[in-house]
Formats: sequence, structure tokens, C-alpha cells
Amino acid sequence: MLNYQAPLKDMHFILNEVFETEKVWHENTTLSDTLDYATAADILEECARFASNELFPLNRSGDETGLKFQQGAVGTPAGFKEAYELWAKNGWSGFTGDPTYGGMGMPKTLAMFVEEMLFAANTSFALYPELTGGAIHLISTHAGETLKADYLPKLHAGTWSATMCLTESHCGSDLGLLTTSAVPQQDGTYKISGEKIFISGGEHDLSENIIHLVLARLPDAPEDVKGISLFLVPKFLINKDQECGEKNRVECIGVEHKMGIRAASTCVMRFEEAEGYLIGKPHQGLAVMFSMMNYERLSIAMQGLGLGDISYQTALLYAKERIQGKDLHSHSGKTRTTIIHHGDVRRMLMTMKSFNEGGRAFACYAASWFDKACYAKTSDAKRSALNRLSLLTPVVKAFITDIGFETCVLGQQVLGGHGYICEWGQEQYVRDARIAQIYEGTNGIQSLDLLMRRICADNGEEYKRFTAEISTFLSECQDEILQPLVHKLQSALTDMDTVTQHFIALPEKKRLMVINASACEYLHLFGYVAYAYMWLKMAAVARSVLTRNTTDDHSFYEAKLKTACFYHMRLLPRIKGLMESLLAEEDAVADFSEEMFMAGITA
Amino acid sequence: MLNYQAPLKDMHFILNEVFETEKVWHENTTLSDTLDYATAADILEECARFASNELFPLNRSGDETGLKFQQGAVGTPAGFKEAYELWAKNGWSGFTGDPTYGGMGMPKTLAMFVEEMLFAANTSFALYPELTGGAIHLISTHAGETLKADYLPKLHAGTWSATMCLTESHCGSDLGLLTTSAVPQQDGTYKISGEKIFISGGEHDLSENIIHLVLARLPDAPEDVKGISLFLVPKFLINKDQECGEKNRVECIGVEHKMGIRAASTCVMRFEEAEGYLIGKPHQGLAVMFSMMNYERLSIAMQGLGLGDISYQTALLYAKERIQGKDLHSHSGKTRTTIIHHGDVRRMLMTMKSFNEGGRAFACYAASWFDKACYAKTSDAKRSALNRLSLLTPVVKAFITDIGFETCVLGQQVLGGHGYICEWGQEQYVRDARIAQIYEGTNGIQSLDLLMRRICADNGEEYKRFTAEISTFLSECQDEILQPLVHKLQSALTDMDTVTQHFIALPEKKRLMVINASACEYLHLFGYVAYAYMWLKMAAVARSVLTRNTTDDHSFYEAKLKTACFYHMRLLPRIKGLMESLLAEEDAVADFSEEMFMAGITA
Repeated sequence: MLNYQAPLKDMHFILNEVFETEKVWHENTTLSDTLDYATAADILEECARFASNELFPLNRSGDETGLKFQQGAVGTPAGFKEAYELWAKNGWSGFTGDPTYGGMGMPKTLAMFVEEMLFAANTSFALYPELTGGAIHLISTHAGETLKADYLPKLHAGTWSATMCLTESHCGSDLGLLTTSAVPQQDGTYKISGEKIFISGGEHDLSENIIHLVLARLPDAPEDVKGISLFLVPKFLINKDQECGEKNRVECIGVEHKMGIRAASTCVMRFEEAEGYLIGKPHQGLAVMFSMMNYERLSIAMQGLGLGDISYQTALLYAKERIQGKDLHSHSGKTRTTIIHHGDVRRMLMTMKSFNEGGRAFACYAASWFDKACYAKTSDAKRSALNRLSLLTPVVKAFITDIGFETCVLGQQVLGGHGYICEWGQEQYVRDARIAQIYEGTNGIQSLDLLMRRICADNGEEYKRFTAEISTFLSECQDEILQPLVHKLQSALTDMDTVTQHFIALPEKKRLMVINASACEYLHLFGYVAYAYMWLKMAAVARSVLTRNTTDDHSFYEAKLKTACFYHMRLLPRIKGLMESLLAEEDAVADFSEEMFMAGITA
Repeated sequence: MLNYQAPLKDMHFILNEVFETEKVWHENTTLSDTLDYATAADILEECARFASNELFPLNRSGDETGLKFQQGAVGTPAGFKEAYELWAKNGWSGFTGDPTYGGMGMPKTLAMFVEEMLFAANTSFALYPELTGGAIHLISTHAGETLKADYLPKLHAGTWSATMCLTESHCGSDLGLLTTSAVPQQDGTYKISGEKIFISGGEHDLSENIIHLVLARLPDAPEDVKGISLFLVPKFLINKDQECGEKNRVECIGVEHKMGIRAASTCVMRFEEAEGYLIGKPHQGLAVMFSMMNYERLSIAMQGLGLGDISYQTALLYAKERIQGKDLHSHSGKTRTTIIHHGDVRRMLMTMKSFNEGGRAFACYAASWFDKACYAKTSDAKRSALNRLSLLTPVVKAFITDIGFETCVLGQQVLGGHGYICEWGQEQYVRDARIAQIYEGTNGIQSLDLLMRRICADNGEEYKRFTAEISTFLSECQDEILQPLVHKLQSALTDMDTVTQHFIALPEKKRLMVINASACEYLHLFGYVAYAYMWLKMAAVARSVLTRNTTDDHSFYEAKLKTACFYHMRLLPRIKGLMESLLAEEDAVADFSEEMFMAGITA
């Protein structure tokens, strides 16, 4: 049928031609010795092979088999353990980890594309290492030397894996309500007790040990979010030789039955006086956890993107083979043609293509701010990069996953009835993509973060720096062929500024409800503009290559140019509707009573 | 957790207050004796009880169990057979059927709401009687007296059920390619041979006999769609006493594994010289089948609507109970509140509510043209009504199902992580709703039908009559409070006219590709305007009731008014984006080569 083909050519185009990420990497003195572009290309190619040969073949069978839950143990589907061991053996688990503890120290810009390939080939599998990656980042950044030395080497080796334990049955988005407790012991450890739900990778048979990062309250904790601390709680306590010892008092007491990602375990975890170790300062746990959350939000975007891409590849293959309908160009009017020749199918495929490649560029752009922050030589430079990253992170997470879901739904539609049956896999991608809009902070929460905290609370300062960057780019974009796109983006920027100013200028009292009821649409407006910026950057590179005639692969660059036009002319206009909706003075949403919501249901 | 509550109050509002359908019914002299509004209300209430008590409790278990396929037999999940027998026993199967053959002769305006309740409570179950209803319509309209007398009574009684057999593995949307053959026999019957796929209800254990309506080619058939004839092929041949006799040579050789509607059988059917009977004239089968298709397209819209409604009810219940996040109005800033108080949740719920109630009104409006056509006393009146119905049918089918899917996705989002796990049922509604956008003619096919055939080929004549009706309504809508909505709709009409004229005016050569690549967005534009018309009609009734103070249930009418405002201010603006996209002179979609579609995938 189809094997997954990693979009290496496009990744190289983005990394190398659009963003020249090698320059960013070499701001890190270690990487300037170890990571030249050829090495990066080898790494991506190796990962592509692993994704196509080891992971993709397990994707559908994993979905069909699902997990086996028995007496607290979770069995992953056939082949998962072998694939995971190969993954670990080849050193991928510590890809971005600190070399002091055996990590490879690779940049996030490269890691994002590794993640994209995993998610595209097998989203359920990808989630296990994905969480370990986030935990590695958290421990490296916030844990003390002992915990680092005890846990990072095995996490880097992939012998152990990790989770984050936030949600409880009564609190998901609102972590201030959590009740899991942590009682300090004489020996400096803590006894953790409570129940956590929706824990990805909470239990499984892939790794020797599972390291839980758990939010809990100390006895003297202040109320609400100000009283949350973070603890490292291993499934097995470790011996002095840093091997697994005694079982800790943490149990998986159930797994969820889900719409998708059915080979990824989503567990209910019970901690009963489990031994744990404080990471960071008491009561500062939420901020620490957010360094993992924000890291993973970038990664989860790649779930939306990867699934959009495998759905595109499948739809394209089908559209090239499926004969149906008449050829518009045939003289007799009787000749049949493959459906890729039909306008509606082309529209769907081009929409998918422009979303995928726009999202890939945007993800790389955002990740480059992550790398810049890591490698910054001054605190000012670091702060600048982090500010930009904070502005972009909710958009990357929510927009790429929303658009990824839309892309998968389109990819399913291209196949007609064959998209709805399990055989071709398109319906699984839709099911697997759906969760990315919900977990790691729902896309509603991301939108509030963007509009309320990153923009309004900042009085639009970082927003202005971002849009100033776009304006500068526009003013420097002189290529005549690109002027229609330049004007489209210029006008879109003006629209976005109007809407942004409208929200910033709202009186504080009104702001809360209005922003809450508008944030999702605003994030979409922002996302469409960001993708338009990416597409114009890509188009500018393509024009430059084609003009200088420095390529043998004309169709790649021509495709970039045409897809940019398609995006700007056919998809970017969606912001017109969003703008009118966002500027509407509409009070019903605030006034509507519960009785009114119920009206019409009961007779 | 929740039981389905049929939205009877809203149904009555639409039937009785907005459209005064009783007047339409009484254009039929038989109905004027038998169907007063009180009787209709009793019927709906009875159906609501059946849906809530018998069907909804089987919905999740049916999805989980799925079907049992063994040696050509298909076993439906536990409880389905009993529910079906009760359904049949209570006379629902012949609800719209011809009274001469034991049907109840009820109007489509009422049948649509019966269908909505079935689809909402249990979409998989609903599909079995739904297809029988379409077949009854086809046989009544096109079959000869003998076939009617032989088959209608048992179909009306529900003892037998029916299917339509169109698709073959190499032809779905393009029926001109079909190869199933029909060979005439001495005795006037035909031997049907061929394989059909995606046959809903092709085999199951609910009814004694299954009557297949099969498209096939006669030996002398002209090529393509001009050579397709329609045959009635029963699973069991019937005796002279019209009971099941010898098994016919038709077999179910497989069932599909699907994303959703897992308790509805989707079968591969093999006909091997099966005995069949011609319906209609030779080679005229497609036109005959379309009378069933168009009838069912209205019904399938109710799948989107019903699922949107059950998803809304579930989301609303959850939002009213789930405590999460801070109360904006609390002084301490610490009090928690139910999530229905959060703007983003309210936005999602109001979007769902406005889509559901707008769709319900639009479905009733379209069905009233079906009834008007049936009851018309002159051929002119009949033609007028059929023209309007033809214009609206693709919009009803595609827009209501697209919007129904969006509604279910929103309803899932309201529940956060709980929307993704199976427990609350929201994920099933998303899976079940998805197929409605694909079968009964994909929504892409509906869009082409609308823009190419119903509008451009008609030079916009019926379109103009439809929009003239809206304009007349607008000019008569004097209520001051409603003027902002009147202006919004007026402006939307102008936008739609601009876009419509743009397509009609295209040179024929260009038209084909451009329309093909634009039709889906155009259908959405049309749909949003149609819903806006519905919402203004509903708001006008609500205003009138509130002004005259003739109700005890203020909140129902206040909710109508506010939801109308919400729809016009927050959702109707989507047409601005659609318009700009539709008017864009964008050629990339036509020029893009296969190589370009592949660009970036291979390294």
C-alpha cells in the first residue's frame, strides 16, 4: 500500500535554506565542533529509516491490538518492545540531553523533525520517548546534582522512561485544585499519596523503570497554585549502583479506552506513600513543571504535523491511482482520469500541502528561538529569545494541532468511503490527531495563554517585536513576482493589529469574559498570519533559487512558489471572517443563562 | 450519566410557529382529515420515548460490541433485534408509506424529525430503517403495481428491510463505470451478477427478508450512465402468498471495519445470477435511483444534526457539573465555578446550539418543499417546489453534515480529556458523524451538484427565486431590535450574489476546473446564508411572541433571540473569508503537476 516517506527534502529546505539553522547551532561552542550540516542530514536520514522500517509497520497493528492491562501491568502491542529497544540502543533517547550525563546535546530545531517523523510513522509509539524527552529537559534544568547523576544517564540511554503526573479526576486545566500530598521524611525524602489520571506512559513494558514527575502539596503548602511542589517518584527505587531495586508504592490501577492513540497507555496511577524527591524549591513546582510542559507543547505540535503529513502522503497515493470521473481535457468526454485531476481533490491536496509545509516551517522557526535561548551568550539575548518563544509556543501547539486535525479530515475525505474504513489508515490518523488538540493544555487554554498573558498582560510589546520582524521582511522583499503575496500579508498584518489593539484597549473588567470567549478565534487569526509569513519566506527563497538557476530540481521550488500563492489567495482569507467575528460587539455569550442553554431540549 | 432528550420544544417551535407546517400538510386532502397538530405532537412524543428508552441505551454497547460476521450472516449487537421488532410493531417502518399498501402516509416534514431522534439516539440502528424508508419511496414512485403489492406491505410493516446497491470496488462517485450485469429471462425476470461494496444493511438479522435495489447493465446497454438499469433483488424470493420462499443467489461475503457506525453493517454483496425484477424503464435506472438518493440525502442530513444535538446535550450536562477554574465574578478571586461560566466554553456551546437549531429549521424548510411537491395540485406548483427542493438538497445534505461534524468535535472539546475517552460517548459521536460527510454522495459531489448543475446550468434562475424570497422577508422585517440582523443578512446576500454571478459569468472552458476547485467553499457560503435566514425567521417569531407577551416560557424565546444574534455576529462572518477565497484569481490549483504534489516527500 504505502510506506511512510519522511519529507527530508522539505526539512532540509527549511533548516538549511529558509532558516540557516546551522548558524544558530554554532552559537553553541560544543555544537560548532560536532554538528555540521552534513552530520545533521545523516541524523535525519537515519531517523527516517527507523521511522519507515521499524515504526510505521507497527502503526495499524498497534491500533488494532491495543494494550493489555492485567494486574497493574500494561502490555504494549507486538513489536513495540523490540522497536523501543532499537530506538534506545541507537542512542535516540538522549538526543537533546546534556552530554555531561551521556546525552547527545542536539538542538531542538533538529529534535522537532525527529519527533515529526516518529509521530507520522506511529503516534502511539512516539508518545513514550516524547515524554521522556520532556522529563530529561526538566531534570536537567531544575534538579540537583544527585538526582541528575542518578537519573539522567538511564533516561538518556532509554533504559528508563518518564511521565508527568499532573491531572487528578477533579482537576485538569485547573491545577490549583490538586490534592495529592507530599509528607517530608527525616531522610530528606517525601511520601507521596494521591491518585493521578490521564497519565501517558504511566505504565508499560518498554523500559526497566518509569520515572514519574509528580505535582503534589506539602503539608504547609499555601492554597491553590502557589502551593504546588514537584517530585520525582520512580517506579523502582534505585540501588547505590543506580540499578532498579525495591518496587516503590506506585501502581497503575486502570487504563483508559480512547478514541485513538490506542497503543499508547493512558493510565490511572495511585501513589500510596510512594517515595519521592523534591525537584526545585517547595511550592514552586508548577513553574518547574511548565518548563517541561512548554517543551512538550512544541513536541505535541509535531504530532499534528506528522499525522497531517502521513495523511497527505496516503491521500496523494490514492488520488494518483484511483480512476473515477471524466477527464475535463478529453475530447470525447468519455475518457476517465485519476482523481488527482479533479479540482476538488486538488484543492484538498493543496490545502493539506500548504498546511503541512507552512506548519513545518513555523515549528522550525519557533524551535530556533528555543535554541537561541539555550545558546545565548548574554542574559538579554536569552530573555529576548525566551519572550519570543513564550509568545509563539501556544500558537505552535494549538494552531499546528488544529490545522493538523483539519488536514487529516481532508485526507480522509480524498479517499471517500475508503477513508472511513480501517484498511487505508486515514481514519486512524484522524483519531490519533484529535487528542493533540486536547492534551498538554487544551487548545482553549493555549489560546487564553496567548491572548491574555502573552499579549494583553504584556501590553502587546513582544507581539509588536514579532510583527515588526515581519514588516521588516516585507519591506525587504522586492521581488516583483512576490508583490501580490507581500500585499496580502501586509494587509493581514494590519488586520491582526486592529484586532490585537481592540483587545488590549478593552477595559479590564470587560476584557476577561470577552477575551475568554474570543481567544480561540484570535489564536487562529495569529496562526494564519504566521503561516503566511512562513510561506512568503519560503517563496522568497524559491524565487531566489529559480532566478539564480542554481537547482536541478525546478519542480520543488516551483511547487513552493505555487503553494505559497495558493495559501495566500485561498486560505489566508479565512482571517477576514475571524476578524469580523472578533470585532463584533456581541454580548449574548456573556448573558446567556443556564436556563437558556437548556431551552428547547425539554418539552 | 445522561439520557437523550429529544428537542421536542424546539421541533414544535419550528414546525408550528416558524413554518406553520400544518397548513402544508392540509394541502393533502387525506392528511387534512387525519393529521392535526395535536396528533403530530403525540407522534413526536411517542418517537422521543422510543429513542430515549429503547435506542439510546443500546448506542454505546452497540459501538463496543460491533457486528458478528460468520459464514455470510451478520449478527447485530445485543438488543438491536428486540428494538427493531418494537419499532416495526409500532408501525414506524411505514411512516411515510402509501396508505394503499399499509403505509401511514405521513409528511416528510414530520419524518425528518423522527429521523433526527433516531440518529441522535443511535445512529447505527437508525441506518437500517432509514434505508428502508428510501426504498419505500422509490418503489412507491417508480415500481409497477405487482412489485408494489408484493413488496410494500412487508416493507411498511418492517418485517422486511431494504438496501441500495450502487457502489462497486472500482466505482463510487462515478457510477458510469459499473459492470454488474442483468440478463433478461424468458419469464420476464433478470439474472443479476456482480459484486457491490459499501452496502449499508446489506445483511443483518433484524428482518425476515432484505430487498436490494441494484444498479446493473442490460446486455444491450448503452455505455456509461446512459446504460444503467435498476432491479429489485430480494434476499429470499417470495411465494405466491407473499411470504419468504427460496433463498436467492445473493450473498454477503464480507463486512467493513469502520471508524464509526460500528453496529451498522456495511457489506460486500455478491450477486450470482440472482433473480431480479426491473423497476422503471431499461437504461433509466440512475434517474430512478436518484429519487431514492435525493430522499435519503435529506435523511442523512439528520444524522449530522442528531449527532450534533446529542453531543450538545452531553457537553451541556458536563459543563454544568464540572467545576474548574475561577469565577470571574468572585471578589476573593478564589471561588471555583462550573465551566459553563467560562467564555470559551460558552462560545463552544452557543456555536453548537446555533448550528443545531439553525440546521433543524433549515431541514424543516427544505422538507416542506418536498411535501409541497407531493401535495401540489398543479404541475406548475409541483415543478416549482421540486426546483426549490433540488437547489436545497445538496446544501441540506452537505452543510448540515459538515456542520454536524464540527459540532460534534466542539462537543468533544468541551469535555477536555473526558471527550477523548469512550466513557462519555462524545468520541463516538465524532466517529459516527464523520461518515455522513462521505456517503450518500460525498460532500464534494453535493457541492458540484449545487454550483454546476443547480446554479450555473440553470443560469441562476432558481437561485434568484430563493434569494428573492429572502429579500422579501427582509423587507417585511420591520422590528427595530432585529435591524442589525436584517442588515447582516442583507449584506451577506449581496456577498453571495457577487460570488454566484462571478461563477455564472465564467467562460465555460474555465468554469469546469474553477468550479470544481471552489464548489465546497461555495456550498458553505450558501449554507451559512441559509442558516442566517433561518435564524432571522426564528428571531422574528421570538420577538413577536415576546412583544405580544403570549408565553410563559420567556427564556425559550429570549434564548432564540440571543442565539440569533450570536449566529449573525460570530458565525455568519465566516462568509467573508469564503468570499475572498472564492473570488481569488488563483491558477495554481489547475497548474500543479503530479511531480509538484510529490515535491518534498522524496529526498
